[in-house]
Amino acid sequence: MGTNSILSPIQNDLQQVETLLRESVQVDFAPLSGVFETLIESGGKRIRPALALLATKLHPTDPDQAATLAVAIELVHAATLIHDDLIDKSPVRRGSPTVNSRWSGTATVLAGDYLLARAADIASGIENLRVMRIFARTLMIICDGEIRQDFGGVHWPPNREEYFRHIQSKTASLFKAATETGAVLSGAPEAEIDALAAFGHNLGMAFQIADDILDFTADEQALGKPVGSDLRQGTLTLPVFYFIAQDPRGPRVEALLERSDRDGDEMEDLVQAIRNSPAVVASEQEARRFAQAAIDAIAILPDNIYRRAMTELAQYVVERTL
Amino acid sequence: MGTNSILSPIQNDLQQVETLLRESVQVDFAPLSGVFETLIESGGKRIRPALALLATKLHPTDPDQAATLAVAIELVHAATLIHDDLIDKSPVRRGSPTVNSRWSGTATVLAGDYLLARAADIASGIENLRVMRIFARTLMIICDGEIRQDFGGVHWPPNREEYFRHIQSKTASLFKAATETGAVLSGAPEAEIDALAAFGHNLGMAFQIADDILDFTADEQALGKPVGSDLRQGTLTLPVFYFIAQDPRGPRVEALLERSDRDGDEMEDLVQAIRNSPAVVASEQEARRFAQAAIDAIAILPDNIYRRAMTELAQYVVERTL
Repeated sequence: MGTNSILSPIQNDLQQVETLLRESVQVDFAPLSGVFETLIESGGKRIRPALALLATKLHPTDPDQAATLAVAIELVHAATLIHDDLIDKSPVRRGSPTVNSRWSGTATVLAGDYLLARAADIASGIENLRVMRIFARTLMIICDGEIRQDFGGVHWPPNREEYFRHIQSKTASLFKAATETGAVLSGAPEAEIDALAAFGHNLGMAFQIADDILDFTADEQALGKPVGSDLRQGTLTLPVFYFIAQDPRGPRVEALLERSDRDGDEMEDLVQAIRNSPAVVASEQEARRFAQAAIDAIAILPDNIYRRAMTELAQYVVERTL
Repeated sequence: MGTNSILSPIQNDLQQVETLLRESVQVDFAPLSGVFETLIESGGKRIRPALALLATKLHPTDPDQAATLAVAIELVHAATLIHDDLIDKSPVRRGSPTVNSRWSGTATVLAGDYLLARAADIASGIENLRVMRIFARTLMIICDGEIRQDFGGVHWPPNREEYFRHIQSKTASLFKAATETGAVLSGAPEAEIDALAAFGHNLGMAFQIADDILDFTADEQALGKPVGSDLRQGTLTLPVFYFIAQDPRGPRVEALLERSDRDGDEMEDLVQAIRNSPAVVASEQEARRFAQAAIDAIAILPDNIYRRAMTELAQYVVERTL
């Protein structure tokens, strides 16, 4: 089942979000508008705005405010993509040249900053202070994670706890912000807000682990980049940790990462070895554990089409092939 | 008269702000705390927090909220200093090594971002949505200006309108945000909010023009950098525009800026020529015009120690020697 079918209960809301998103990046300075439009129009799954919308559905919520929230959440996501691509020196995103491949590093970061400020501006239109505070705190968590990553480089021995902390700040924090702010906006009682925040956090963790697995297992053409790109860049993800811990070829990873040329046959062999190893299965189990924790977290909510969509979304993120 | 004497009516408030500022940058990640502490403890005039505090004084305002606002304003300023030093490649700020001289470009921008998020977090504690919105919009204006500067480089012929737009976004926007949010927080009527916003804007314009003049006229030891640093870096400021328009040696500026080596005897001569030219006097008149506009803007406010302090501040920023 794809996301379109899962998200059919909020299809109209998502269409409104799409329109508002395009409007939101029409800014005065043409080069900025250009890069924002490219980024927004090249798509993406819109999982984060969908989560924000779903989380508003338990109680009657002004649909315009819900859509505004979803737009602000997606703009924060778009801003972090701009920064991530710069940090990772990625040339292409969703088939289009990245901002960093066209602009200076400084201009690229400022473009991301501008989008964050725009997100804050839009979020302030919701007129809910608790929502604003969650936005600000989430930004701090994301920046903190990015700085630690920039400082860290490749650690050895690889630290699994650091990996979990990093994906929490990089991905799960914004998933959590989406569901938590959605619940706050709907006027949900605290127990439901907590449940939806926990759902978002665990879903985000599952989503990122699945993403990191797909970097090894997905079809190269669908990925749009070489299989094992993270490892080639020196980024150690969960499958690599399991591989190092379980496979006799584990020590080769360290030797290879120390070399300046990481793109030879040896790396190719290693990526294939990880791809076909039980490390992938162990990582998938971990992702499923988080997805199940997400589903369990919302067990206290009434069983309706929105809770079912959230449950299906949690199942989907760990079963998708891209 | 120095700022200490001018700001004596809010001396206690400023002391509370100083304490809160130091607390506000105690963050979990030690390297971040370190650079923030260096930046905050190395001082600065605290004119922006002073403006925010003064603007709250016309109506009874919770002193803790006023101090919180002043802290958030100064943190935004500190964040923009981090970004500015990176853009200008400045090695030293207030006698201490800049963040960009110690960290990668990416980490430096993220450190600035983190501080902006922290400012938003602190500002959200004020629980005033209009204040939050002014913060978000001001950030957009500042980012927009920084990106345009990064895109622009040296324009020729120099464009005086662009200079005014640039210092408006770079400096005057935050001065305006300080006085406007202060007035909003105090519950001032709209006419007073407008007056204080106009005061902040015009004061900021005067302040930045005076700063740009001092780059030519101040004592080199007090400046802590060579006289004419802006011009040596290719940044054209108001005295340069007047010099080009009025002095027979004007065309030399363009010739010199086109050369990769801008630090020879010719540049030295040119900086001295500008320093001693009527272009400085014309620029000072422009700064005084903005200072007077600031003073005129608050003529509608009751005449008390706070309005007098603001008036004196406007006189001070154009008369200071550093």
